[in-house]
Amino acid sequence: MSKPLILVANDDGVTAPGIRHLVEAMQEIGEVVVVAPDSPQSGMGHAITIGNTLRLTKTDIFPGVTTYKCSGTPADCIKLAKHHVLKERKPDLIVSGINHGSNTSISVLYSGTMSAAIEGAIEGFPSIGFSLCDFASDADFSHTIDYVKLIAQQALANPMPKGVALNVNFPPKRNERIKGIKICRQARAKWQEQFDQRVDPTGRKYFWMAGNFVNFDKGEDNDEWAIANNYVSVVPCQFDMTAHHAISQLNDDWELKL
Amino acid sequence: MSKPLILVANDDGVTAPGIRHLVEAMQEIGEVVVVAPDSPQSGMGHAITIGNTLRLTKTDIFPGVTTYKCSGTPADCIKLAKHHVLKERKPDLIVSGINHGSNTSISVLYSGTMSAAIEGAIEGFPSIGFSLCDFASDADFSHTIDYVKLIAQQALANPMPKGVALNVNFPPKRNERIKGIKICRQARAKWQEQFDQRVDPTGRKYFWMAGNFVNFDKGEDNDEWAIANNYVSVVPCQFDMTAHHAISQLNDDWELKL
Repeated sequence: MSKPLILVANDDGVTAPGIRHLVEAMQEIGEVVVVAPDSPQSGMGHAITIGNTLRLTKTDIFPGVTTYKCSGTPADCIKLAKHHVLKERKPDLIVSGINHGSNTSISVLYSGTMSAAIEGAIEGFPSIGFSLCDFASDADFSHTIDYVKLIAQQALANPMPKGVALNVNFPPKRNERIKGIKICRQARAKWQEQFDQRVDPTGRKYFWMAGNFVNFDKGEDNDEWAIANNYVSVVPCQFDMTAHHAISQLNDDWELKL
Repeated sequence: MSKPLILVANDDGVTAPGIRHLVEAMQEIGEVVVVAPDSPQSGMGHAITIGNTLRLTKTDIFPGVTTYKCSGTPADCIKLAKHHVLKERKPDLIVSGINHGSNTSISVLYSGTMSAAIEGAIEGFPSIGFSLCDFASDADFSHTIDYVKLIAQQALANPMPKGVALNVNFPPKRNERIKGIKICRQARAKWQEQFDQRVDPTGRKYFWMAGNFVNFDKGEDNDEWAIANNYVSVVPCQFDMTAHHAISQLNDDWELKL
């Protein structure tokens, strides 16, 4: 029986520690092909490159693994991988990450890691984004690996819900072992933006965006709760953004005739 | 009674024809403030600028309207508008567009126009993205204006469903008048990517991304059907991407214990 074909992408770039861990873990499970950005793409959301050209360059950064670095966004990587690298071959699984930093809650919208996974889901492939909720420069990924493999193996063994990609987040490494996995909903939270205003050497103002994460969610069935309580959070994410429940309110209450 | 405060953004940039039409329409309804990108940002999805600086520059492009151009993405524009331009004032409505091109169906994920509206919704403000389904360079926006005003007025008069931004698309101008407004769901469709491979003057390969829109949806309750049949489509879009219906399948069928 041939090994499953696993496409690996990320948003921190092909040289990031997180993708190295993911490639090594996936090599234990299947045949790995990597197409990842040639530079960090954090915060790119579901951006695609439509007004500019794209480069795709082979690299030997992972011994024995077919690897390309791409000048575009994470979503571009999946599109180019499908069209130009894999061609007729279809991946059995697409994994993205392991992102260096949290993609829980509302961050899924801004996440390049998840945009690669969601692009994979749009194409109809089982797709998972993995993120470690630790922004420290020396973040330890070691406690995540067994769970990464478990979830990837389960995604190969079971049907993925239709129109869904999984958003998997890991708690930072703590003294206590991870308690297990929780299937969650996205917590109700947001980034409270802050802008640091500075003056450049020519006297013109500029800004650095910063932000504080504010969690409004009092529930215990969401990803923020899971991470805070040392569980792995798994949120099934859909690319149908329709608020189906809101359709009747608009039809009933709004006067939409000219 | 004071006029409503309307924040206008877009993704085609502050000099695009679509935003000029939108500003003029909103001036008939309220006090208008514009914060829009200084260059085209199509396809930027929900990208934000986190590894780079941002500029915000006042411009007199719209006589009598406080207008800033921003070096960042559409989502950055909303964040900077809230924090630095409006400060303590809260917009009664945020409108984005009128985009030059369709944002129906799956395009909502890639759309900078809709990312501005969704960012507004995350902040709790009634928010609408407007797009014209006509990519022609001389696209005619004239048939959209009365509907833009009607929908904006209804958004000021009625509560917006919680956690929702409206994705409004207009059919291209046809001989027949627009038939009316349909509240819709996002059609099931995707972009079938195509890459045009070329060689640069130094002999290195590069790619242009192109794509064909493929509509799989046989229903008549979706935005693609509405546009094809000369209706304005209004899709309520949510930023909770959780596939709530998929949680039980994952809990029941997947073996997620180490």
